[in-house]
Amino acid sequence: TIDGDALWRDIMAQAHYGATRKGGIRRLTLTQEDAQVRAWFEKTCSDLGATVSADSLGIQFARVPGTDESLPPIIIGSHLDTQPTGGKFDGIIGVLGGIAVLRALRETGHRTRHPIEIANWTNEEGSRFAPAMLCSGVFAGVFDEDYALSRTDRDGVRFGDALTQIGAAGPERCGDHPVVAYFELHIEQGPILEAEEKTIGIVTGVQGMRWYEVTVTGADAHAGTTPMSMRRDALQGAIALMAAVQSIALDHGPDAVGTVGLVECRPNSRNVVPGEVFFTAEFRHPDDSVVVAMEMAFRAKAETIIATGLDVAIAQVWDSPAVKFAPDLIAAVRDAAQDLSYPAREIVSGAGHDAAYLARIAPTTMIFVPCAGGLSHNEEESATPGDVAAGANVLLRAVLTADQA
Amino acid sequence: TIDGDALWRDIMAQAHYGATRKGGIRRLTLTQEDAQVRAWFEKTCSDLGATVSADSLGIQFARVPGTDESLPPIIIGSHLDTQPTGGKFDGIIGVLGGIAVLRALRETGHRTRHPIEIANWTNEEGSRFAPAMLCSGVFAGVFDEDYALSRTDRDGVRFGDALTQIGAAGPERCGDHPVVAYFELHIEQGPILEAEEKTIGIVTGVQGMRWYEVTVTGADAHAGTTPMSMRRDALQGAIALMAAVQSIALDHGPDAVGTVGLVECRPNSRNVVPGEVFFTAEFRHPDDSVVVAMEMAFRAKAETIIATGLDVAIAQVWDSPAVKFAPDLIAAVRDAAQDLSYPAREIVSGAGHDAAYLARIAPTTMIFVPCAGGLSHNEEESATPGDVAAGANVLLRAVLTADQA
Ligand SMILES: NC(=O)NCCC(=O)O
Ligand SMILES: NC(=O)NCCC(=O)O
Repeated sequence: TIDGDALWRDIMAQAHYGATRKGGIRRLTLTQEDAQVRAWFEKTCSDLGATVSADSLGIQFARVPGTDESLPPIIIGSHLDTQPTGGKFDGIIGVLGGIAVLRALRETGHRTRHPIEIANWTNEEGSRFAPAMLCSGVFAGVFDEDYALSRTDRDGVRFGDALTQIGAAGPERCGDHPVVAYFELHIEQGPILEAEEKTIGIVTGVQGMRWYEVTVTGADAHAGTTPMSMRRDALQGAIALMAAVQSIALDHGPDAVGTVGLVECRPNSRNVVPGEVFFTAEFRHPDDSVVVAMEMAFRAKAETIIATGLDVAIAQVWDSPAVKFAPDLIAAVRDAAQDLSYPAREIVSGAGHDAAYLARIAPTTMIFVPCAGGLSHNEEESATPGDVAAGANVLLRAVLTADQA
Repeated sequence: TIDGDALWRDIMAQAHYGATRKGGIRRLTLTQEDAQVRAWFEKTCSDLGATVSADSLGIQFARVPGTDESLPPIIIGSHLDTQPTGGKFDGIIGVLGGIAVLRALRETGHRTRHPIEIANWTNEEGSRFAPAMLCSGVFAGVFDEDYALSRTDRDGVRFGDALTQIGAAGPERCGDHPVVAYFELHIEQGPILEAEEKTIGIVTGVQGMRWYEVTVTGADAHAGTTPMSMRRDALQGAIALMAAVQSIALDHGPDAVGTVGLVECRPNSRNVVPGEVFFTAEFRHPDDSVVVAMEMAFRAKAETIIATGLDVAIAQVWDSPAVKFAPDLIAAVRDAAQDLSYPAREIVSGAGHDAAYLARIAPTTMIFVPCAGGLSHNEEESATPGDVAAGANVLLRAVLTADQA
């Protein structure tokens, strides 16, 4: 079994890099804080005897050899980047759970057949550079490397330049890396496990999700002198569309969600009727056809705003269809939880994860553990040492099962 | 009469400082661009024989002596700061029209009884530092100097520090400056004069206006995993309130306006349900009681949002009641327009102006000229050389009338 205390110490150690006053982490991908945690990852894994490398998009791999080095590695991974107001667990326990597995193997002297690698995927959150899971997407052949390198953040900084800035890239071309199976441990980020008092979520797949960028254009005008009837107020048009994102989700059943997360108003001056508003929207549902239906309803709403004399441009910037994980690995997780007597249930992930893209190129699954109140993407995100250790123990067992397959 | 060509050349000359690609000006108060236009103002006025000074808030005064230096000056003024996407005329023609008056006096050798001063008021726009007309407000005793110095912009920079940064302050304490009468030439910024083919607006007063800062607080949450029913989405709450600003204005007759100009969403990440939204709102009407009624309707709407489980804080950050200008000076403007055979009509200003505060301490009035399509606070703002010259000619005559009073 894994050393739960050491795992918890690692969680607290990495939390220094980008620590916020409210106890969370602000560690956007490819920033100085990200560079710090990458160095920490490299040192921590090296100290456990692993060899650490990075590929052309800065994805880090920490490798311990197997007894048969001709076999491709089993990869355990997740991400160390966070949201602007992120917590200490999202992504982190997937990487650090992998480190806990390395530590357990080292301490027991157990040698796996396959090499074992821990991956720290670059830009999973998608907060600085859209879309999310950008680099696991390139790794899995969903996106071109050039597409990734040319993404820009809201200040216009290119992904490629940010990568160079922190010197995170390595020699291997992204995707030129074998993988025989992929495991990811994660907090649920939702309320179900906690509510049902389950320790382990046996993740069977990931729901479908689409992201949009919307620009509403009207005309800048004086707030004091322009009669209401003469305005082309981009914000008021955007408001109607942003409200529709919520109402459309509510119209599509309890499993549907719709969110506007980012808004930019221009020129953003108190006494100027806004001439342009940019906002992002997303819809998610376990059934892809419902995601499509929500998009159609949103586009229909946009037509009604265009009819008022405003311009509306909607760009779909991401489409991540629903994913089903590998039955063998799901069974390995189920068996591990049962052997260890952890209360468990099957669950579909509401969040996107690097595993969703890895599933396209290798047998893949995930293990969830509860987080307090289902809260995530929030500085108050929290999980218990016992639950995290339980998740890592299930991870260890499932990996050993896969190693024998 | 004034030299219309020289006035137009001045307008084009100042437009270099902060020029935008779309032909407008971005010259927020107390920035480097503002420092440049201040230096231009000082040189231009000095070349016309005026003595230029600045007070403790950076308000610039260019003075030519009168025949009786014991008399307080007649001040002609407006502002050289602009909106982020401002035009070449708003405020500018009031200052440059004053310079045109100096030039006319110099070229004809006419000596006024009173000293004549041209004022360039600091931070009229209120875009960088709220509220608008901040320094004419201190000048008129409405605000304390410390209040002005402690205003912060959206990046947290204090007004006082920005003032020091560009070295714009002079030795005289703001407000320790005599004034016997105040005139301000301005574009209408609205559609009425153009629609009625009038060259001159005889401005009888300024409508009432109030500004608000609104913060809606919910909780950051994951956009993919948080069911709609468990969200405390600050943006969706803010949307309902921002939509109400428009609908409340529409409910209060054709003279009412209500605007949301500035929005900040936090943490502003695509896949995070926003935990906090800050926005500004304003209501205006020629009748102060209608402004109060709109505020009450807005606060009532906020209660309904609070009832949904969000926190809403509304701070009234500015109250500028309706203003009536001095009958004698209004008459002087009317007579000047008539003598010069310019089509004219009385008009109430929808925009705030430094004149609104000067009216509290001295006989004050304004002269409006048309602008194309009523467009202002927009880079495409435009006015004709003929109309601007007509306004400056009316200004010159009205000033000479006041000088004899
Ligand atoms: N796990 C996680 O929060 N990933 C971010 C991608 C998403 O928005 O679901
Ligand atoms: N003249 C002008 O645009 N002033 C800005 C203050 C206001 O918002 O009315």
